[in-house]
Amino acid sequence: MNITGKNLIAGEWSGDTSNGFSAMNAITNQTMNEMFADANEQEIDQAINKASQAFVTYSQLSAEKRAGFLRTIGEQILALGDDLVNMACAETGLPAMRIQGERGRTIGQLGLFANLLESGEYQAVVDLADANRAPLPKPETRLGYLPLGPVAVFAASNFPLAFSTAGGDTASALAAGCPVVMKAHAAHPGTAELVAQAISKAIEICGIDAGVFSLIQGKNYGISSQIVTHPMIKAVGFTGSERVGMILQRQINERAEPIPFYGELGSVNPQFILENKLAEDAKELAQGLVASLMMAQGQFCTSPGIWAYVADEHAATFENAASQAISETAAGVMLTPGIAVSYNNAVKQWQGIAGVECLAQGKSPSAEQIHFCSAALFATDLATFKDNKTLHEEVFGSSALIVRCKSQVELMAFISLLKGNLTASIHASEKDLPMAQQVALAAAHKVGRLIYNQMPTGVEVCASMNHGGPFPASTQIRSTSVGSEAIKRFQRPICYQNMPNELLPELLKI
Amino acid sequence: MNITGKNLIAGEWSGDTSNGFSAMNAITNQTMNEMFADANEQEIDQAINKASQAFVTYSQLSAEKRAGFLRTIGEQILALGDDLVNMACAETGLPAMRIQGERGRTIGQLGLFANLLESGEYQAVVDLADANRAPLPKPETRLGYLPLGPVAVFAASNFPLAFSTAGGDTASALAAGCPVVMKAHAAHPGTAELVAQAISKAIEICGIDAGVFSLIQGKNYGISSQIVTHPMIKAVGFTGSERVGMILQRQINERAEPIPFYGELGSVNPQFILENKLAEDAKELAQGLVASLMMAQGQFCTSPGIWAYVADEHAATFENAASQAISETAAGVMLTPGIAVSYNNAVKQWQGIAGVECLAQGKSPSAEQIHFCSAALFATDLATFKDNKTLHEEVFGSSALIVRCKSQVELMAFISLLKGNLTASIHASEKDLPMAQQVALAAAHKVGRLIYNQMPTGVEVCASMNHGGPFPASTQIRSTSVGSEAIKRFQRPICYQNMPNELLPELLKI
Repeated sequence: MNITGKNLIAGEWSGDTSNGFSAMNAITNQTMNEMFADANEQEIDQAINKASQAFVTYSQLSAEKRAGFLRTIGEQILALGDDLVNMACAETGLPAMRIQGERGRTIGQLGLFANLLESGEYQAVVDLADANRAPLPKPETRLGYLPLGPVAVFAASNFPLAFSTAGGDTASALAAGCPVVMKAHAAHPGTAELVAQAISKAIEICGIDAGVFSLIQGKNYGISSQIVTHPMIKAVGFTGSERVGMILQRQINERAEPIPFYGELGSVNPQFILENKLAEDAKELAQGLVASLMMAQGQFCTSPGIWAYVADEHAATFENAASQAISETAAGVMLTPGIAVSYNNAVKQWQGIAGVECLAQGKSPSAEQIHFCSAALFATDLATFKDNKTLHEEVFGSSALIVRCKSQVELMAFISLLKGNLTASIHASEKDLPMAQQVALAAAHKVGRLIYNQMPTGVEVCASMNHGGPFPASTQIRSTSVGSEAIKRFQRPICYQNMPNELLPELLKI
Repeated sequence: MNITGKNLIAGEWSGDTSNGFSAMNAITNQTMNEMFADANEQEIDQAINKASQAFVTYSQLSAEKRAGFLRTIGEQILALGDDLVNMACAETGLPAMRIQGERGRTIGQLGLFANLLESGEYQAVVDLADANRAPLPKPETRLGYLPLGPVAVFAASNFPLAFSTAGGDTASALAAGCPVVMKAHAAHPGTAELVAQAISKAIEICGIDAGVFSLIQGKNYGISSQIVTHPMIKAVGFTGSERVGMILQRQINERAEPIPFYGELGSVNPQFILENKLAEDAKELAQGLVASLMMAQGQFCTSPGIWAYVADEHAATFENAASQAISETAAGVMLTPGIAVSYNNAVKQWQGIAGVECLAQGKSPSAEQIHFCSAALFATDLATFKDNKTLHEEVFGSSALIVRCKSQVELMAFISLLKGNLTASIHASEKDLPMAQQVALAAAHKVGRLIYNQMPTGVEVCASMNHGGPFPASTQIRSTSVGSEAIKRFQRPICYQNMPNELLPELLKI
């Protein structure tokens, strides 16, 4: 494994690592050996200019060639072998099995878009000419799609592979025909470089213009600002916190030319537990929800953060089972020291809110477990929830809040208070169907994915997936960042009128 | 014809016309008799609240019922008869035949969306469950679409029917399942009220919640700001100037929750004339372009504002023919006094630019023709065009600029300088195909619709139309404001996972 610590600027490794930064080994809490260079203004400008130049040829590459390129990236990622797994585990604290699974998903995503391109699915819509139409003849029109241009992608802290360097945003942008300027996450720069090396090899193997991909390293906030405000950047993909996402959104709002900002910024993924389900399955459901909450120590965007029900006589069974399950959980390592601090602050803040009860906490970390955190389970009533906006916000980590409603009317009122979410689940039995219908109708307008009797964690990468939703789940409610529809974020319609065959793009030819 | 001058707030006519405003008769330049009430803050808030309440039932209305509602609106507009035509002609100065044609298009648009709804075209994408998949079972997921919520629509000055009260934005929003809060254009408030009366009757006939449509009258700028920043408004449709559109965009950017702003803000619709076409058809093409330019006195969003070619020995034939055609045009009435002033200022400004030659002007208006304007034809070279950004901006009215390039290289450089446009046309003969291919590849990235050997004016309302394009043609490059795809602006995806049939929306049921 050879880590240069440099930026990959259109095929050239560039930068001075001597004044750079290092990642933290998440588990040992030690600074890692590799030094990485903050990209400078010239390098960033160069990367974006080269992307813009590469767009001319890359946007015209046949669907088959783009598909081959995506598959080759997947092969080269796999060829990195254990080096990649070891680096990602050290930088994020995630276990090897999880990283291996995520690698499979990452390669699978590249394959999904390759399949999509090969299937020629984006067929033209054609309206034929009618020379005899009165009062005016009707022209022939054909609707096709064009890639937008160079896309900036920001890596996510919690998916070092599947939402990072060659993750879903990159795969869908490259599939659409857009070059990518990738901003690596400062918490896993080594993983980013290894994957960038794989992409760079795929570019060589497939004979693609090297400007199609650049990797920008850095901890300096000015870097992100320079990227998103550059006039040649035509769309931005971002997965992260609402705070950072909205800083980028505001910078993008200042551009002379508006561009789409696809920000996935936060979600509490409410769980609605209906009366009969609670009566029939309280204990099992409680354990299932805790297991879902504990995945990746709650650091999934689909982690179930708020659970609501009408608190009848079965609520105690549920809460006891959930509390016991939580109290048995070991402290877990967080992705970054910053996330650990934020999580602990949020838990402390909730503990101080009158009307919020801390039902249980997981085991405490040992003295050596520096940025490990413990799970926490809280409960409150609707009035307290309504009055404390901080309870409406996502806590990134394994903390959940039970909202005990007094009635079905209160449960419906709870739904109306929710901000936008990636997902919600309705947990119901046969007998709950009438209430489930009401909940589904109201909850649909609060989420991008509505789930019945399943946990929210786990996102299928398929044609019918939607991973988005009302703000802050997504800044662009009409888009998904997972699944084959994700490619549409980086394409736009164009109508060709009365065009001879020779001037039509391949897919639109007669 | 009974004009109340009031606002229609969810079925109630409301407002005090005594401190209101009047429209101007465009041809006589006289203030019209009818007084209209500026909507006040309470009325606007009421309209939006009622729209939000109506959304609950309207969003669940079957596709068939929504289709019936759209058709009934069309019938009621037709039932307004000559009253509507006379009012629109007086307020806009457009001739009766044009208004009748526009009425046909408006009713046709409503019918197009009704057909779309009845055809059940928006089929679900379904991925079936697979209980045996390893390592985890695959859930069933179904992708459907939900309406966004209340939509604010701003009427356009240049299409009092087809882009106003019951125009394309309203029709597509209502088709999608979204209530509409309509801001009438202050230049044609009487036309707006008549159409609102028709919509109100259709609401009664179809038994729809009256909150589904409100009409807001007003000249006060605060009205628009209140509408677009209201938290219950979930999308905005606007057709107008870049200046006003960007004021709205900035106000929308300040919202806590980002929403899509569909602004169609300007387009110069470049015409690329290739070498052999110029040699073969100079005179006919010049006359055709002048005829296209003169439609509605150049007040079409697709008006051909810039014509470019390699100025060889045939250019003189073209320019002479175009100049002669321009000089024979009569002065025409503009939609509003403000538009007349802006047009005359722009023409004056261009006359003062060194390197810009005024080739011809149309006949001057008579003393009584107060806000009539004359056509104008200018010519310049690429260097002057490059250095004067004002020449890149749309002049709303019948003014065109010829850019004389010295070579094909200069013609390609000219394309690269263009901002975004709704359309561009390539005028070419058989022999021009190689150059046409180059032009088409470059020009495609500057436009929403690329046309071959036809004029840009005239927009088909059909499935394959795209009326949008790179900024400033549209603030949302991925959307069209004309054609059946326009409905998607007001819908967003939702994934239903593992949902029983009873909880699925009609279109997604098994």
